[in-house]
Amino acid sequence: MTVWLVGAGPGDPGLITARGLELVRSCDALVYDRLVSPELVQEARSDAILVPRDAHDQKEINALLVALARRGYDVVRLKGGDPFVFGRGGEEALALARAGIPFEVVPGVSSLAAAPAAAGIPVTHRGVSAQLTIVSGHSCDGEELDYQSLARAPGTLVVFMGLRRLEQIADGLIAHGRDPRTPAAVIAAATTPSQKIVTATLGSIASAVRGLESPALVVVGDVVRLGALIRSQPELGGRLVPA
Amino acid sequence: MTVWLVGAGPGDPGLITARGLELVRSCDALVYDRLVSPELVQEARSDAILVPRDAHDQKEINALLVALARRGYDVVRLKGGDPFVFGRGGEEALALARAGIPFEVVPGVSSLAAAPAAAGIPVTHRGVSAQLTIVSGHSCDGEELDYQSLARAPGTLVVFMGLRRLEQIADGLIAHGRDPRTPAAVIAAATTPSQKIVTATLGSIASAVRGLESPALVVVGDVVRLGALIRSQPELGGRLVPA
Repeated sequence: MTVWLVGAGPGDPGLITARGLELVRSCDALVYDRLVSPELVQEARSDAILVPRDAHDQKEINALLVALARRGYDVVRLKGGDPFVFGRGGEEALALARAGIPFEVVPGVSSLAAAPAAAGIPVTHRGVSAQLTIVSGHSCDGEELDYQSLARAPGTLVVFMGLRRLEQIADGLIAHGRDPRTPAAVIAAATTPSQKIVTATLGSIASAVRGLESPALVVVGDVVRLGALIRSQPELGGRLVPA
Repeated sequence: MTVWLVGAGPGDPGLITARGLELVRSCDALVYDRLVSPELVQEARSDAILVPRDAHDQKEINALLVALARRGYDVVRLKGGDPFVFGRGGEEALALARAGIPFEVVPGVSSLAAAPAAAGIPVTHRGVSAQLTIVSGHSCDGEELDYQSLARAPGTLVVFMGLRRLEQIADGLIAHGRDPRTPAAVIAAATTPSQKIVTATLGSIASAVRGLESPALVVVGDVVRLGALIRSQPELGGRLVPA
């Protein structure tokens, strides 16, 4: 009786870890985010208990994990990306610790670098960016972003769940001193067949992404320019899904 | 004839992606960082060309990848962590693009979150940290860290390769206004059998880590406190290596 908090990776089912896949295949119960690839859910045993969950009802998910474990089940909680990077895995881990349930965290490939990589963009690059700042555009607590520190931070800025508030975020960065000509990119549905990449400048990105749908990751910084060079390879950003 | 830039993950061979493992098993030539787990190298075909490399001679590695591909080989370039997060994968990608060699980036689990997770520390956590800043303590260009922006950034600070210069980094942060009582942790050899975790405060961490060896990741911020709660589970941080 153990709960594994497993990162499913950025979207492509081939980007789960070998260990995570092994656990999905052997568990008694699989509690998975709706954004997780259906191919991964299909890897579970045919007699496994499958529970799809939307992420926002966190208390219910915590209680469900505890209840399943107390029934004696080996439970995999499969979450998009990495459980501990804007994944609320810490809340689940604390709930399990408080309930005395044995658990383990199996990290995953976060979209923080995998989504830019799918667009050919390295989030760090020698001589271009030696610092990386990551925030969420959709704060659960309704907290405001610290635009002053974000606008002044050197290097690359990555924004999770920033699509809906992109105009506000871009305006906030520019108002606090970030150059509106800074290159910016949005990668939607990264590493899946419906992946879309939009590149523009910080000043124009909000209007350039109209019509794009979540999930999407925003990248701001000079590394975005490298993407155009690296993407010139036809193979890149294409066939990431295992054959 | 393709070159795959594959992230091997943070150390535990089970934390490579399913797709990455499949490529290691099928490639003609494997060029791997010395820090990569020997178990992963052993997954290569018995007739594969195996080339161990130290990371610092980047030009030679770029030339080697091009030369192997031009011989017609399918080449896997296996790098610790994620190729595009302080991994110099962008330089290899550009060299391949310039040479007209087809290539693909297969992201990996970066130690930026996996090393803290192995210590029970979520790098973001609701109500504790909604911003993440990542730098390298060992700049290839000899660049100085921007202590002013780092000391003022809210949330969690992660430093790659910061062990050797930890005293200087901690002093720089404190001199620019960061509270010396801020919790700090160093995780060495994360997710491997020789993993070591040291927690202290920013003011005392440099003396607390004496004797620790690289590779190590530094985490600074209130999330470090959560690690003590989450680590209270005996199972966590233990058996991450697949049975």
